[in-house]
Amino acid sequence: MWKGEDSRTRLPMILGHEGIGTVAGIGGKKCAADGSELREGDLVFWNRGISCGYCYYCAVLKEPSFCQNRKVPGINVPMGVPPYLNGCYADHVILDAGTNILKVPQTAIDPSVLVAASCSGATAAHGFDIVRPNLGETVVIFGPGPIGLFSAAYAKKYGAGEIVLIGGSEVRLEMGSQFGATTLLNRKKLTAAERQERIMELTSGRGADLIIEASGSGDALREAIGLARMGGTVLSVGLSQPGGTFEFDGFLDLTRRNLRLQGVWVSDTRHAYQAMNLVLSNPELFSRLVTHRFPLSEVNQALQVMDSREAIKAVLLPELG
Amino acid sequence: MWKGEDSRTRLPMILGHEGIGTVAGIGGKKCAADGSELREGDLVFWNRGISCGYCYYCAVLKEPSFCQNRKVPGINVPMGVPPYLNGCYADHVILDAGTNILKVPQTAIDPSVLVAASCSGATAAHGFDIVRPNLGETVVIFGPGPIGLFSAAYAKKYGAGEIVLIGGSEVRLEMGSQFGATTLLNRKKLTAAERQERIMELTSGRGADLIIEASGSGDALREAIGLARMGGTVLSVGLSQPGGTFEFDGFLDLTRRNLRLQGVWVSDTRHAYQAMNLVLSNPELFSRLVTHRFPLSEVNQALQVMDSREAIKAVLLPELG
Amino acid sequence: MWKGEDSRTRLPMILGHEGIGTVAGIGGKKCAADGSELREGDLVFWNRGISCGYCYYCAVLKEPSFCQNRKVPGINVPMGVPPYLNGCYADHVILDAGTNILKVPQTAIDPSVLVAASCSGATAAHGFDIVRPNLGETVVIFGPGPIGLFSAAYAKKYGAGEIVLIGGSEVRLEMGSQFGATTLLNRKKLTAAERQERIMELTSGRGADLIIEASGSGDALREAIGLARMGGTVLSVGLSQPGGTFEFDGFLDLTRRNLRLQGVWVSDTRHAYQAMNLVLSNPELFSRLVTHRFPLSEVNQALQVMDSREAIKAVLLPELG
Amino acid sequence: MWKGEDSRTRLPMILGHEGIGTVAGIGGKKCAADGSELREGDLVFWNRGISCGYCYYCAVLKEPSFCQNRKVPGINVPMGVPPYLNGCYADHVILDAGTNILKVPQTAIDPSVLVAASCSGATAAHGFDIVRPNLGETVVIFGPGPIGLFSAAYAKKYGAGEIVLIGGSEVRLEMGSQFGATTLLNRKKLTAAERQERIMELTSGRGADLIIEASGSGDALREAIGLARMGGTVLSVGLSQPGGTFEFDGFLDLTRRNLRLQGVWVSDTRHAYQAMNLVLSNPELFSRLVTHRFPLSEVNQALQVMDSREAIKAVLLPELG
Repeated sequence: MWKGEDSRTRLPMILGHEGIGTVAGIGGKKCAADGSELREGDLVFWNRGISCGYCYYCAVLKEPSFCQNRKVPGINVPMGVPPYLNGCYADHVILDAGTNILKVPQTAIDPSVLVAASCSGATAAHGFDIVRPNLGETVVIFGPGPIGLFSAAYAKKYGAGEIVLIGGSEVRLEMGSQFGATTLLNRKKLTAAERQERIMELTSGRGADLIIEASGSGDALREAIGLARMGGTVLSVGLSQPGGTFEFDGFLDLTRRNLRLQGVWVSDTRHAYQAMNLVLSNPELFSRLVTHRFPLSEVNQALQVMDSREAIKAVLLPELG
Repeated sequence: MWKGEDSRTRLPMILGHEGIGTVAGIGGKKCAADGSELREGDLVFWNRGISCGYCYYCAVLKEPSFCQNRKVPGINVPMGVPPYLNGCYADHVILDAGTNILKVPQTAIDPSVLVAASCSGATAAHGFDIVRPNLGETVVIFGPGPIGLFSAAYAKKYGAGEIVLIGGSEVRLEMGSQFGATTLLNRKKLTAAERQERIMELTSGRGADLIIEASGSGDALREAIGLARMGGTVLSVGLSQPGGTFEFDGFLDLTRRNLRLQGVWVSDTRHAYQAMNLVLSNPELFSRLVTHRFPLSEVNQALQVMDSREAIKAVLLPELG
Repeated sequence: MWKGEDSRTRLPMILGHEGIGTVAGIGGKKCAADGSELREGDLVFWNRGISCGYCYYCAVLKEPSFCQNRKVPGINVPMGVPPYLNGCYADHVILDAGTNILKVPQTAIDPSVLVAASCSGATAAHGFDIVRPNLGETVVIFGPGPIGLFSAAYAKKYGAGEIVLIGGSEVRLEMGSQFGATTLLNRKKLTAAERQERIMELTSGRGADLIIEASGSGDALREAIGLARMGGTVLSVGLSQPGGTFEFDGFLDLTRRNLRLQGVWVSDTRHAYQAMNLVLSNPELFSRLVTHRFPLSEVNQALQVMDSREAIKAVLLPELG
Repeated sequence: MWKGEDSRTRLPMILGHEGIGTVAGIGGKKCAADGSELREGDLVFWNRGISCGYCYYCAVLKEPSFCQNRKVPGINVPMGVPPYLNGCYADHVILDAGTNILKVPQTAIDPSVLVAASCSGATAAHGFDIVRPNLGETVVIFGPGPIGLFSAAYAKKYGAGEIVLIGGSEVRLEMGSQFGATTLLNRKKLTAAERQERIMELTSGRGADLIIEASGSGDALREAIGLARMGGTVLSVGLSQPGGTFEFDGFLDLTRRNLRLQGVWVSDTRHAYQAMNLVLSNPELFSRLVTHRFPLSEVNQALQVMDSREAIKAVLLPELG
């Protein structure tokens, strides 16, 4: 979006779709999703998407993240639309009346730690909400970025046995082991054949039960399909842009092996709630995702360290004078 | 409610929570759940409950029918609350902006046929949305009232094998056979032991896969539990008031037999949509549920034929002069 | 297998993995899956695969069709292995003691009608056992062969609304309408763009809820993916050999649209049971699948009419003279 | 069984249905469920029940623990039946050829720690296999015996938020906190009303998401039902005998609140595998369940400490002289 490459952007707009804040004022009576009444001073967190509630996806399928009228402040809501101050690259945000709000029960927490839960954490939660490992199963994760690291934490939280993390950076892989990965495979040091061999060894030659592709690379997705056991699942989650194509053979890559390939791109309030709970179960761990912090006025530097992959997460801090 | 026995009633109010009608006017742009734009003259149908969208049940569990702030015009919304003309015992109804609306695709249909889909049909749909028979399984239904007859139709629609209907009226049982029942057991002619014997014969001595208690009687629920196979399911659906208690032995009636006892009381837009689709798949069949029709001014007679169980469904017709 | 192109074949062997027959003799006591004791003269039907019962797939995942030690008489069991007379291209078959047997409750039925249920019908049942349409949903099926026609029948049986069948033969499409298809699209008369337009019209522009690829063509699978709604499912079922590859974009074809691509290749006793129940619910309908019958001695002609696609199903009849 | 009160017993027989051991000899080739070949000296563990594989429960429902022909050595298999040396109160056991065997991957483990996984642990696993908490949900457990403690560990392993344990012994409750309980309620110090108040506080007044009754008391089951939120689940698991009845009101206790009451009594290989994985994820924790160890010759003392509830688990050790 920063570079003008995201077609959803509606200029002029305030960027920033991941946020957290303290309630400064309330128009009308409003409750949080846990049923408690909101008060000034509460630390709150919200679902970034605002769904219409009456379309086929919202009302019949109960999948509000697929809503055909979904608005996401900071992504596709311009400044000219009420409540105007929409995006999170700001000191103050006015939340639309349709926003689903979650009150953070632990007020002593550093708010920065929860920022990533509203998007990366919630999207990974969505994936695990539909394809969860069983106790002791083997999970393979491609890509130790925010979604991959959240995925390692969910896999551990839901009882997976072996959690294999595949990536190209020793620093990121090492961080992955803190999030739950039990086996680290550096794709710069091991060939695809060696990676496969390691996973077959861990699974008595069957292949992994669940593979999560969170790197955004087409090559990784192709490799992921090859690592699944008969009847296994490949979850491709949260890519933000095309990562390259590959030659797909429906017979060998899907039917013959009874595989499930599942895409997940968005999330709803349920998933933001799950992500919040995950982070609050171990705030110290998730604080390690926030590798950089900048005052709001240095937003360009924040974008640069994200772009260069120097940062895992860079958080902007308000300057409230 | 008519007799003042329902504690949800907020007087003064217009009764009637099952309705259908033609759009007479629209305030603002509004779409139906299928995505089409609503126009004057459209035949529409709606989910009777209006949920808040932000509480734990709506936002996290995605179960809007459990909403803690749910309003149901005709049941718990008094006349003093906007949009004032709430209930369906009326020539015109103003639907709250939060109402989920379904457009009826077949405009040639007699609207009366769809009335029951908005409550009895939707509640039964909710039950089948969570405990559906597998192809060829044996389903037993207690109570050939509207919910029981809808249940027979769903059981058939979802591929059940034997559908056993238990009731006390030959006329109602006979109607049940039109809705899909393959075996009719008159509880006035057969003892409980004889009924059990018949069901054991049909299931090679195992017991039924799914039993649906839709009569509202505590005795029937006790009998239902006794008819389930190991690991089977008993669905108790849609009772409007207590039907008597019985002595429950957690070991023998639940744990030892690995049973599932599932209660269902309400429904949401998803279920109203399923009920509408069921009725539209065979309108002629469902027209038989409407045994009586009265002009609105004769509402008391309509209530009396329902109270005496002379009618299965009595429908009120508007007098539009 | 006939042409020597199936690598599973172990020569010398008796071909034929779809069968049905009358019990001629029993070694030891043996019960059918419904719990009844088997007797001479019973009409029986069986699950073609014999699983080990103790491997990870059988014992932990309870997916016996993925069994690593699975034997399928007529496909991968040579004649030199007990009980020797394995395949169904025969007057008599000796079933392995590990075979799961289903007793056909309607003994007046023409056995030929059930033959296809043991493989095509069971494989399609497996697909519907994991991805079933909801009431009123739109299902699109590619390929009006045995699996496609069974799929149309299941889709109808489970309550689908619109059932769109896509194929290249008017005769086959017409047969599809007897099995439940409500819209027939001839791919030789309509372009891919026209087919898509028709499906978008039927679904208010959303796309189909469930698409079943049963033609075995890679091009059809690519088209199927393009027809799914956000969050929809594409089931690729029962292909017997590779049908061509295509360029797959993980972002556009899977993740971004939250799709599920599900492969299904095999089946187990549960699915054979469901298929038997489907056929028995309407034997006259399924008898139309049996377009040709030959005495066993004319097996080569039977294989030729299958190969030329002149037949939907050709059945071999024993010569017991 | 020891007191002659279990009607399943077939005398003369060797008691003991929970066991673990080292392979002393193998008749024929046999593989473990993980696919590895068994060798002498392997530490193995097994599913206590032997199912037939061909009945309706085994073959069609894929629920082998409901098998109508299920044998459980140590419970219902007399000594006169091959392989004769059936029960686990022994130095050597001959496992029936139909036994599903699990190889313990960590051979350095104290075998005693795994004994309880084959019955209490597996039965609790069965419960969680069908009704699993979502991340952050509130789980209430009645009864800090082996099944209740395993349940606390599963609830934590699957990501529950608050885990409330209710019991009457401070020592057991304290042990519960080691297994994952976050709130301990002593029913001898708090009234039922006080317990309810505490749970309502923890859940913003909604009630618990999942309640597990593992104490075997009818009173506890009644209380459990009262603590569930709208649409919540009560799991009654693993009681060995009737625990008293109570007055059940189908309307108030089930239907009106859209509850699910789920019984679970048995388990299969899948569950034993899950239990083994749970124990191996923290052997030190589970070693605390084994409060007493006796040589086989002191079996009567072992039964007495279990009977007096002095022990949580008493394990018999072989005397291999």
